[in-house]
Amino acid sequence: MKWKTQIIRLETQKQFELLDLTSEIENEVYDSEIKQGICIITSTHATSSLIINENESGLKEDILNRILALAPDGENYQHNRIDNNARAHVIASILGTSLTLTIEEGRLVRGKWQNIFFVELDGPRANREVMIKIFGEK
Amino acid sequence: MKWKTQIIRLETQKQFELLDLTSEIENEVYDSEIKQGICIITSTHATSSLIINENESGLKEDILNRILALAPDGENYQHNRIDNNARAHVIASILGTSLTLTIEEGRLVRGKWQNIFFVELDGPRANREVMIKIFGEK
Amino acid sequence: MKWKTQIIRLETQKQFELLDLTSEIENEVYDSEIKQGICIITSTHATSSLIINENESGLKEDILNRILALAPDGENYQHNRIDNNARAHVIASILGTSLTLTIEEGRLVRGKWQNIFFVELDGPRANREVMIKIFGEK
Repeated sequence: MKWKTQIIRLETQKQFELLDLTSEIENEVYDSEIKQGICIITSTHATSSLIINENESGLKEDILNRILALAPDGENYQHNRIDNNARAHVIASILGTSLTLTIEEGRLVRGKWQNIFFVELDGPRANREVMIKIFGEK
Repeated sequence: MKWKTQIIRLETQKQFELLDLTSEIENEVYDSEIKQGICIITSTHATSSLIINENESGLKEDILNRILALAPDGENYQHNRIDNNARAHVIASILGTSLTLTIEEGRLVRGKWQNIFFVELDGPRANREVMIKIFGEK
Repeated sequence: MKWKTQIIRLETQKQFELLDLTSEIENEVYDSEIKQGICIITSTHATSSLIINENESGLKEDILNRILALAPDGENYQHNRIDNNARAHVIASILGTSLTLTIEEGRLVRGKWQNIFFVELDGPRANREVMIKIFGEK
């Protein structure tokens, strides 16, 4: 068994944003030289998330719009008395904070239209991190 | 460590549908002879998903109705200018594309009312695939 | 490779409730002596779930309110003819039943505001179980 951990650092530009991490993650899998294994991607923040879907500009807006509808603006969120980002926390709770993908014959398994996105819900932020943990057999 | 990968091929019949894969997955776990391990189930499509819940016919309709409410009909989805399946993409983004289950004493760990379903969101489709990856110790 | 499985038993007090399991899970990771590995947390019920977010009392109510909005009260759920808990089943289907976290240098990887919660959706219940499965290298 080989284990590899890498952190990707991100600077986000908008309050709500999808950032495509597919290439970085595929490069990490390639560099690991693991042929048969697992790749776990983790957002270590309570106001961001990760999703998998197609990278098409109109669709990215559709996805963001519906994700934001999980915690609509204008609700009387109690957490906003402490920090004005309750929507981000609520949405991250529903979407989750990690993805598990598999590695076959040295390649990350994903469908043709399955790209991996970091979901910023409380940006812009200068110091977002995503952890890539890969393990398996060479 | 033993690793086993199997692909289940599905033909779906309806636009929106839940297909119970529990028996197929339990059979794969049994055939693997892995006693202590992990089972990762992946839908490699951007318009389908996987969930775990009870296989009761009324409940399956309830679940589909509320899943579809995550991306209601009649919204002005931008992706529909390209391909008229934005709802499927949005819902798959929210529900996710993989499940991680554990194996104890050679058996898939699940509760009495926890069945594993493929969620078709853009059917009918002749060629859906679900990947079962199992690893662990014999 | 070392494997460790532990079951946490919970007694819930309310119909809808978030219970913070972070300390119990961190203790299991510490006791396992695994330095590099994975921790999979599973709720083996069809009417409960697991999420990760900040443990702040107002936020916990915000999260519960929006989670419950995934299956609003007053819908004509078919499953309620059999058992009056369709909302719990639907919400558990959407939120999912397991979490995958990583272990680095003997510690569970999580962000400062990322606590691990059991989500009771059909309580109170005297016998809820959460399975902690840890594997990796010492």
